[in-house]
Amino acid sequence: MSRFKMLALAAASALSFPLPVQASPEQTARLRDAALADTLAWDITEGLTTEIGQRKAGSDAEARARDWAVAKLKALGFSNVRIETFDIPYWERGIATAEITAPFPQQLILTALGNSGATPDKGLTAEVIGFDSLDELKAADPAAVKGKIVFVTHRMAPAQDGSPYGPVGNVRRQGPSIASKLGAAAILIRSIGTDHHRVPHTGVQDWSNGAKPIPAAALSNPDADQLERVLKRGKPVSIALTITAKMAGKRQSGNVIAEITGRDPAAGIVLVGGHLDSWDLGTGAIDDGTGVAITTAAAKHILDAGQPLRTIRIVWFGSEEIGSFGGTNYFDRHKAEKHHVAAESDFGADRVWRFETRVTDAAVPAMKPIAAALLPLGIVQGHNGTADGSDLDELAKSGVPIIALSQDGTRYFDLHHTADDTLDKVDPAQLRQNVAAWTAMLSVVANDPTEYGPVTGKTE
Amino acid sequence: MSRFKMLALAAASALSFPLPVQASPEQTARLRDAALADTLAWDITEGLTTEIGQRKAGSDAEARARDWAVAKLKALGFSNVRIETFDIPYWERGIATAEITAPFPQQLILTALGNSGATPDKGLTAEVIGFDSLDELKAADPAAVKGKIVFVTHRMAPAQDGSPYGPVGNVRRQGPSIASKLGAAAILIRSIGTDHHRVPHTGVQDWSNGAKPIPAAALSNPDADQLERVLKRGKPVSIALTITAKMAGKRQSGNVIAEITGRDPAAGIVLVGGHLDSWDLGTGAIDDGTGVAITTAAAKHILDAGQPLRTIRIVWFGSEEIGSFGGTNYFDRHKAEKHHVAAESDFGADRVWRFETRVTDAAVPAMKPIAAALLPLGIVQGHNGTADGSDLDELAKSGVPIIALSQDGTRYFDLHHTADDTLDKVDPAQLRQNVAAWTAMLSVVANDPTEYGPVTGKTE
Repeated sequence: MSRFKMLALAAASALSFPLPVQASPEQTARLRDAALADTLAWDITEGLTTEIGQRKAGSDAEARARDWAVAKLKALGFSNVRIETFDIPYWERGIATAEITAPFPQQLILTALGNSGATPDKGLTAEVIGFDSLDELKAADPAAVKGKIVFVTHRMAPAQDGSPYGPVGNVRRQGPSIASKLGAAAILIRSIGTDHHRVPHTGVQDWSNGAKPIPAAALSNPDADQLERVLKRGKPVSIALTITAKMAGKRQSGNVIAEITGRDPAAGIVLVGGHLDSWDLGTGAIDDGTGVAITTAAAKHILDAGQPLRTIRIVWFGSEEIGSFGGTNYFDRHKAEKHHVAAESDFGADRVWRFETRVTDAAVPAMKPIAAALLPLGIVQGHNGTADGSDLDELAKSGVPIIALSQDGTRYFDLHHTADDTLDKVDPAQLRQNVAAWTAMLSVVANDPTEYGPVTGKTE
Repeated sequence: MSRFKMLALAAASALSFPLPVQASPEQTARLRDAALADTLAWDITEGLTTEIGQRKAGSDAEARARDWAVAKLKALGFSNVRIETFDIPYWERGIATAEITAPFPQQLILTALGNSGATPDKGLTAEVIGFDSLDELKAADPAAVKGKIVFVTHRMAPAQDGSPYGPVGNVRRQGPSIASKLGAAAILIRSIGTDHHRVPHTGVQDWSNGAKPIPAAALSNPDADQLERVLKRGKPVSIALTITAKMAGKRQSGNVIAEITGRDPAAGIVLVGGHLDSWDLGTGAIDDGTGVAITTAAAKHILDAGQPLRTIRIVWFGSEEIGSFGGTNYFDRHKAEKHHVAAESDFGADRVWRFETRVTDAAVPAMKPIAAALLPLGIVQGHNGTADGSDLDELAKSGVPIIALSQDGTRYFDLHHTADDTLDKVDPAQLRQNVAAWTAMLSVVANDPTEYGPVTGKTE
């Protein structure tokens, strides 16, 4: 810490009623434009993906990543750097192989879905029954499904806002439980993804309403195309499937937290972050190495500019992928603290094109300085009331205001939850635009004394 | 066969010295334009990749593909449909896994190269020594390489004519033997490919000059990027490698042949084709399902238009990928027959942009009608003397003229020899342009009485 900052901190602490000093639009613009030359977000993403690689929730790699994060955040000069651990149910992926045995013998490429059950050790062979959508599966006659391998082939279209992931993603989220309850031997789904590569998309699902775990896996899109074509020939299709996934007790996960102490501790926390864990197939570059990197780099630009009014808290959440355990644990520990606003970056690193908010109606005019600071980056203002972030769900439900800087998601689901989520997919120029956007947003919200919440009646 | 065609055939056979009837430019243009609506090339590619899938040289799948081909070629009305079998040395891929064990533990994705040796059953762990190019490896001190895992990371750039595949491909073709002779424990190369996906590129290599087989594999491009970054950290890097590949005796392969009998058997054979075998990782859509499909569809358009002057022979070569065994076997059996010209399609299915030739200087003017017929498809004329085709090497060396319809190869090496070589990568519109180009070319060369060869002194 510089002598100047120490003096400023001492002076601020000495005031019983510190006067908030808002960042001027000029100060914000200067910080934003300087952040367009940011190198830290790339350094963090490159370091985390290279020196740790995949960071599956509860794995040794995730634990190494926490230590890596602590060292990095301390070296950057943040305060109160710490790990908050918690236990999670641990799922082991094992192996997943599949082969069409009739009528056209050939291998298929697939990956188990989170919490998938296992086949018998020697695999299972069964006839395939195909469905175009989840609704078709829901309407199926159990007698037709019983003992078969269900295949649901609903395709997902790319979209800038990623909105198809909600409905189409339900094939993954709900399909396995529905198939299990219908008596299926296993379920294969078309990957919830928009690419055309032999890189299947994993992702979590839970066995709801007491559904018995069955083997559940996603075919890559070209393999799903292939199985569709094979089924269209009209002959009975059999697949031999081996999945050795299993639940393997409890393992430790954790959140990594760092702060910039604000001048006014009572002004509430500005929470920013992403998630440190990743799926195990790729190296978690865009999901979500860049999320922790962008938000940390932006906070660093604020830190270097001098002490903000409010405390900025950076959280690198653990175990997001398997059910936002990090977000839940954070809420349980910190719900009594005043959170001024929270924002998560968890949608890759392509350019931010929109910012959305979830603040009180009274606070909507206070969004104008943010909008003004973001517009030069080509970022337009969306609606109030719709912003979210998966690790922020509990905070949002409790009334904490949310800001979302929405990235262009057109190619996000090409890579999401696949082996292809690697550093080469990050565009350094777009990454820098993200850092500039977050820096500008933080410059305003960490210094504006206006209250944004609590927000009630806007939960969707 | 239609009554008209039967009569025409009978009339032609009745002539002791049949008068060659050249296809008029108008006839050729009409055939070409009709072929732009072709559906057969898609049907063949779709059928072969769906009903057979991968067709590795010597595999049961390749044998099924030959039977599939015979049925298809007979159903299309071609004559003299037959299989010519031969034996090949069979290489089993087994499994290939790799893990960086220090300093940053993580899995890498790789695939064994053709004819790779195996590690011990439990794998081997060794330090990695990196090289930027084959020349750097060649110049290495054996003492520095001995017992290590060699890594050569030369990158290949995309190019319309695919020319980087020659020099950069030597990393795969020669690297393993060079590393072996330097005493390396194994060799990993950056995939010979231009994509950014976790789909490594396999391909053949031979153990030259008595080099002892060692484990030899290609990392996907993102994995090669990763290993480069890890090495640049400057700490010793160790990898645990398991490859269970092995040579497994002789297996049967074969060529599938079909013909359109020409009006003048003495006028020589116009040979067209592609290769039926594929690598085992994908379904051999662009390499080379489309090659056999395009040439067969073009021949079918000629067949349906009436008997040509010369015999058109379609060859679906076997075992090209592991060393052009089909081409060699074809030459050994058929070298005594007069071949007027030969042409192979084996560079994907993107649009033909250039046609090149290897004919006598005297025959160069006879290329003009071909050029005129191709130009409306946007195809420009290249040089005389440079055309080739891997299954045609022996024919070319013996003086048989060659015509090459060069496809745009800009994205070919994104897919080549990977799991991603699947039907969805074929653009139906560009595939039809290929069929039109081949139809136009065949219409001219099968009917023009001009001799194109024999060609001497043009072998490169």
